[in-house]
Amino acid sequence: MKTKLIILLWLVVFSSTAFGAANKADTMLVEKQHFTTKDFTTVSGVTLEQVDIGWESYGKLNANKDNVILITHYFSGTSHAAGKYKADDALPGYWDAIIGPGKAIDTNKYYVISSDTLVNANWHDPNVITTGPASTNPKTGKPYGLDFPVVTITDFVNVQKRLLDSLGITKLHAVMGASMGSFQALEWATRYPDKVERLIHVIGAATMDAWTVAALEKWALPIRLDKNWQQGNYYGKERPLDGLAATMLNITQDAMHPIIYNASFPDFNVLDEGALKDIRTLPKLNQVLAQRAMARAKTQDANHVLYLVRASQLFTAGMQSDLTTALKNVSAKTLLLPATNDLLLRPENMRTVFDTMKAAGKDVEISEIEGGWGHLDGLFSIAPKAQLISEFLEE
Amino acid sequence: MKTKLIILLWLVVFSSTAFGAANKADTMLVEKQHFTTKDFTTVSGVTLEQVDIGWESYGKLNANKDNVILITHYFSGTSHAAGKYKADDALPGYWDAIIGPGKAIDTNKYYVISSDTLVNANWHDPNVITTGPASTNPKTGKPYGLDFPVVTITDFVNVQKRLLDSLGITKLHAVMGASMGSFQALEWATRYPDKVERLIHVIGAATMDAWTVAALEKWALPIRLDKNWQQGNYYGKERPLDGLAATMLNITQDAMHPIIYNASFPDFNVLDEGALKDIRTLPKLNQVLAQRAMARAKTQDANHVLYLVRASQLFTAGMQSDLTTALKNVSAKTLLLPATNDLLLRPENMRTVFDTMKAAGKDVEISEIEGGWGHLDGLFSIAPKAQLISEFLEE
Repeated sequence: MKTKLIILLWLVVFSSTAFGAANKADTMLVEKQHFTTKDFTTVSGVTLEQVDIGWESYGKLNANKDNVILITHYFSGTSHAAGKYKADDALPGYWDAIIGPGKAIDTNKYYVISSDTLVNANWHDPNVITTGPASTNPKTGKPYGLDFPVVTITDFVNVQKRLLDSLGITKLHAVMGASMGSFQALEWATRYPDKVERLIHVIGAATMDAWTVAALEKWALPIRLDKNWQQGNYYGKERPLDGLAATMLNITQDAMHPIIYNASFPDFNVLDEGALKDIRTLPKLNQVLAQRAMARAKTQDANHVLYLVRASQLFTAGMQSDLTTALKNVSAKTLLLPATNDLLLRPENMRTVFDTMKAAGKDVEISEIEGGWGHLDGLFSIAPKAQLISEFLEE
Repeated sequence: MKTKLIILLWLVVFSSTAFGAANKADTMLVEKQHFTTKDFTTVSGVTLEQVDIGWESYGKLNANKDNVILITHYFSGTSHAAGKYKADDALPGYWDAIIGPGKAIDTNKYYVISSDTLVNANWHDPNVITTGPASTNPKTGKPYGLDFPVVTITDFVNVQKRLLDSLGITKLHAVMGASMGSFQALEWATRYPDKVERLIHVIGAATMDAWTVAALEKWALPIRLDKNWQQGNYYGKERPLDGLAATMLNITQDAMHPIIYNASFPDFNVLDEGALKDIRTLPKLNQVLAQRAMARAKTQDANHVLYLVRASQLFTAGMQSDLTTALKNVSAKTLLLPATNDLLLRPENMRTVFDTMKAAGKDVEISEIEGGWGHLDGLFSIAPKAQLISEFLEE
């Protein structure tokens, strides 16, 4: 892979908008929309007076409203799965390589819809609309902070369901998501099996194991250690950006693999005079990474990240402790796309899910995404699966 | 593997002494010794008036002083490679399975010696003697703090050389180390090729790549974020234990693999009522891990950990930027023992080192340690390599 492309993709890793191989001359322009719903009760049993989320769509809803494909976004992602908001945006949405007119998810045929989740991390991104601890608590007129209820993947799905209900959509031709998006997609297929005809589950998991619950805590710990975090009461004061930047470093590395990571730094030299002379001077590599992470941190809200960590840690398909039983609920035709080099949500777990679903007589297939990005291959190396996805959607 | 054994080994993971399969009735008792040297100049160009380190030995030095095997310790380790200090110690040294009378490294034949490194992490372990930022700076009468010079793997080796010189030992039958101990062992073989006859390099690396330099920073960041860290000036004040405990969590997980990690928590349940009800309540699993990590943190000095991170980040065999050239210096017969499931120092890098040394005509062999511990297989799953090691030492 060319160094220039790798550098571009690294920009993406630290960017709040994401990426797709934009090789079409005509850009698909998309518009961010605002959805409001009232009296939303979370799985944790709290009723929120009002929930606001952003959403966008590509293609046209047909008269029968049966050509809908829902895209659910990953941990650091937003609703921006494809297209551009403005023609001169630096980058299109993250799966632009497979979503658009004539592409694998053909917007001439399908109505593709995607929404920001609850507690979306990118609070300071002007294109993101979400409800979470940084939102105003109507009871106090101040940000919720940690009084915001814990929300789960099920809650993300239930908000999406309200959005779809508001549009009169009662059936999904398919639901597709990567990483934390795969959790939502599977939750849809488990909880609302009669509404989901096809499930495409990318670089994901079906349940959290002890290893992953422990690993995810690495994304929360630096935030809680930051002296500015103040038990989440930092609104209107200095933000816990140092801790949040450390979290960004951890997320980025966990989402990658040494192959492309190392290729990204062709000038890396382990002999670093500054770092040798003074413990206070970081190695040059770590200085560069810290700068990128800080830029990324500025677009995010620290508490929102804590809530996303918790939602992920509590995820298990159908919120049932027995995965095998939960998976029996799925009636959607299923395509599992783990990444061979994924170090975060490891492919062997999805091979087990495949075996479990197969044994239960489900219509399931699995195909591994190859690449050197690791977990991020689910975003950056999806193009070779275009034909497989296209055929899966047509069958 | 039995749950009880796994739990015992987890205690080890969070213990400052380490572990070996203590299946011999007669315990080898060992005594910690104290070595002092003056006017030690570091690679970074600073002369320390005095350096103190602890050491211990097993077996007897022969008249020709040519039966010496040096064991170099890993990041969180100490000189305690085998035996017990007292008969009723809970655990013997970490490689007790292979060091002792009649074992792979037969102390009836060899004189085995091991020392604490500079900036050893276990400052509050009464059995550890080391010099680092927590030591008193003779110029000020106060702890060095961050005024302590950056030290490198080469400095660790040069202190060991002074210890051996003081004992009249000029040749090593072998040097063997795991992880950061492998860095020292290889540094010995690269820098003092005429003194090292055999090299056993376990779960290690020959140079740091960008991936690992970035990953190691995860072990430093939580410490620097702790409000008590105070730029390293916490001596006599509250210690940065929260940050240090977060570092311990990161180190432990990086050193493990999902196979045994998940098997270690057979009662793990992703559905966690407390964690669902309040963001301030950690999932039960994370509470348990946090307690263990805090107990471990109390035995360590935070600044020492920062210096160990830096020494590791700057490591490259022979402190040369070109690894191939550096490896050409090695004349020792070499045995490389990476662990197949190592997620921290990945075995593929050692396969490349093997190929490079083979191409340079070196006497090198490689054998992978199998197991479900990950990086820790280099400590916990070494027993099946006993015969290989024994034969390698005799040839």
